[in-house]
Amino acid sequence: MITSRLQAQALDAADPLRTLRDQFHLPEGVLYLDGNSLGVLPKATAARVQQVVQQEWGQGLIRSWNSAGWIDLPQRVGNKIALLVGAGPGELVVADSTSVNLFKALSAALSISRADAQPDRRVILSERSNFPTDLYIAQALAAERGYALQLADTDELPGLLMGPLKQRCALLMLTHVNYRTGRMHDMAALSRAAHDAGALAVWDLAHSAGAVPVDLHRDGADFAVGCGYKYLNGGPGAPAFVWAHPRHASRFWQPLAGWMGHDAPFEFTPEYRPAPGINRFLCGTPALLSMAALECGVDTVLAALPMGGMGALRQKSLALTRLFAGLVQAQGHGLRLVSPEDDAQRGSQVCFAHDGIAYPVMQALIARGVIGDFRAPDVMRFGFTPLTLGYTDVWDAAEHLRQVLVGEEWRQDRFMQRQAVT
Amino acid sequence: MITSRLQAQALDAADPLRTLRDQFHLPEGVLYLDGNSLGVLPKATAARVQQVVQQEWGQGLIRSWNSAGWIDLPQRVGNKIALLVGAGPGELVVADSTSVNLFKALSAALSISRADAQPDRRVILSERSNFPTDLYIAQALAAERGYALQLADTDELPGLLMGPLKQRCALLMLTHVNYRTGRMHDMAALSRAAHDAGALAVWDLAHSAGAVPVDLHRDGADFAVGCGYKYLNGGPGAPAFVWAHPRHASRFWQPLAGWMGHDAPFEFTPEYRPAPGINRFLCGTPALLSMAALECGVDTVLAALPMGGMGALRQKSLALTRLFAGLVQAQGHGLRLVSPEDDAQRGSQVCFAHDGIAYPVMQALIARGVIGDFRAPDVMRFGFTPLTLGYTDVWDAAEHLRQVLVGEEWRQDRFMQRQAVT
Repeated sequence: MITSRLQAQALDAADPLRTLRDQFHLPEGVLYLDGNSLGVLPKATAARVQQVVQQEWGQGLIRSWNSAGWIDLPQRVGNKIALLVGAGPGELVVADSTSVNLFKALSAALSISRADAQPDRRVILSERSNFPTDLYIAQALAAERGYALQLADTDELPGLLMGPLKQRCALLMLTHVNYRTGRMHDMAALSRAAHDAGALAVWDLAHSAGAVPVDLHRDGADFAVGCGYKYLNGGPGAPAFVWAHPRHASRFWQPLAGWMGHDAPFEFTPEYRPAPGINRFLCGTPALLSMAALECGVDTVLAALPMGGMGALRQKSLALTRLFAGLVQAQGHGLRLVSPEDDAQRGSQVCFAHDGIAYPVMQALIARGVIGDFRAPDVMRFGFTPLTLGYTDVWDAAEHLRQVLVGEEWRQDRFMQRQAVT
Repeated sequence: MITSRLQAQALDAADPLRTLRDQFHLPEGVLYLDGNSLGVLPKATAARVQQVVQQEWGQGLIRSWNSAGWIDLPQRVGNKIALLVGAGPGELVVADSTSVNLFKALSAALSISRADAQPDRRVILSERSNFPTDLYIAQALAAERGYALQLADTDELPGLLMGPLKQRCALLMLTHVNYRTGRMHDMAALSRAAHDAGALAVWDLAHSAGAVPVDLHRDGADFAVGCGYKYLNGGPGAPAFVWAHPRHASRFWQPLAGWMGHDAPFEFTPEYRPAPGINRFLCGTPALLSMAALECGVDTVLAALPMGGMGALRQKSLALTRLFAGLVQAQGHGLRLVSPEDDAQRGSQVCFAHDGIAYPVMQALIARGVIGDFRAPDVMRFGFTPLTLGYTDVWDAAEHLRQVLVGEEWRQDRFMQRQAVT
């Protein structure tokens, strides 16, 4: 581990991915460690959004659905994201929010489970520490359809699938990288365990897409959803994405059967006829301005492809998170590392817990311009997006944290009423 | 009826609402009669969207959820739209698409119907000519929940509610102004008929909000949804809105139970606890750029409030549609008016049918810069948004239509493969 800021600067100077940060507007005086919550603004975005507003909408008006290719945007941006998650062309579309897409994906997976004549499988299995919106959506769907949502600790999942749930589990629903701890699942092993139990595997890639290598095909996923505004840098509330394995894509059914998912939306037929393939995951008219911004964000990750792509980004991300965890632990101020030490199990974030002081310490950091976030009850989250951050940033962040912990400022901080959005 | 362009110009000169069009960028050489499909660009929008992109996102980053008020935007814009549809403050939120919101509203209405111990009511009643996405969503929900979707002709609805469906209808689901004909329902009478039959009334205001006066409270609606990108000028794919009557707002349940609809989203509790009131209609993180643009669009309609508001806009809209229908009918070229002649039954559009030639004639008009749209099988749609259009525009549009009909250009037009989006 390095022991001086000069060494960190030398690592930055030698970093072949260093130029990627030139794609972004990074505000002065801010050390941003919250790209896992809201990615930073790409330089290309403002001009592109203006083009959509002033030329395509303002001048082209309704004609832009065809002339500016609006109608194909869900597929075009989807195909770009597909390159980052091991999906093929035509397999992934951008639409709606992650929550809404999860509802569709779970519905779709249940429709496949039913179609395969497995009516006795009435359990959706997930983990207790999954992101709340995933649990809420699954709870609601389970209640409506007569399923049970069973929650377990992470390490109990394989045993449950091999044992008590072997004939009863319809779906395994997991978030690949945990939002609070940064712990990353072994997608291949858990998908296999689900399949061995006769269940389907539905993955939420909210903290994975653009952050860690994902290979949906290789790792046996059946359905997946993911978020556009975290590591894909799509902007606040950017649309989300949804994927189905091709073997399911023309078979599944989901009840958000809006006209954009119809086989021929402009025939205006009274009967719904789902589009062949993945397009049946589309529902209403997409939020074009937000989707155009998402494309710019995805492009910033695709820019890494000639430099080694997600593999190279992953190596740098691991180096950054390893360094930050090491520096903070070496300070010895009683922070407990809640992210895995094992590289293979760690996403692109480092989280520390400390009873009682995590919240005011994070507020003091934010007041200094070092922006991470707090997750109840006691976790400080630091996200390290290798597109924008370097080793000197990590060094400085650790030093700020040290200064806050030994200083007084956090003790005077007033509690804010609201937290930032994950 | 006027008989010369000079008379039309005189009407424009005397129009007290004329200045409202200064709020918009209207492209040169275009006569835009498709604001019922995609409203025009307000002048304020580009700067506001840039502010969100460059300052709030670019500089403020995650902090803008609080400091820029992002977290309150669904309610803030919702309260503005509420002023246009006779809803109270805190009763209406902006979220997702119209299709997704309709799914929520229908689910919510069914949950109320069930809670009121009416399990034998298993029919959702709508009309055959409703907009397809409404029918698709209702079909899907009905199939999933064991309801039947019954479709009837418009004039059969009251009789069905008074007779065969009196004990069996759970919901009446209607679009207030028909997308293809412009026919407007009597919301008060039909809501009353639904209530007299023991059913709830769910209204789609896609072609009403910002176009015609709507009074959800006075007219007995139970739930309503509406579109942001038509007469509200919110931009392509702008988020939609959803409303519940206050007597239902803290009772209903809907399965798109995302974290933004939770009572306390940032507590990250594993159990879903719906927010009190209308906020339980929120689901995932909203598309902020698109929602900021929507607010600018809504503001252009609110600008009419000091000039008489929706009542004054309605009077002008009726004058415009009456004039266009009259001018075209007087030309005697065999076009059949499919919009009601009766003012009380006509929305803000005028539609003509003509077997076989409607599509190429509309394409020829568009080639001239006179932009309406075509709806299968044989309808030419002309929308008249009184914020941007005047009497001279109506005169010119009718004259262009006459020239096209007597000329040759439409006979050479190639059929395009795709239509514009409604």
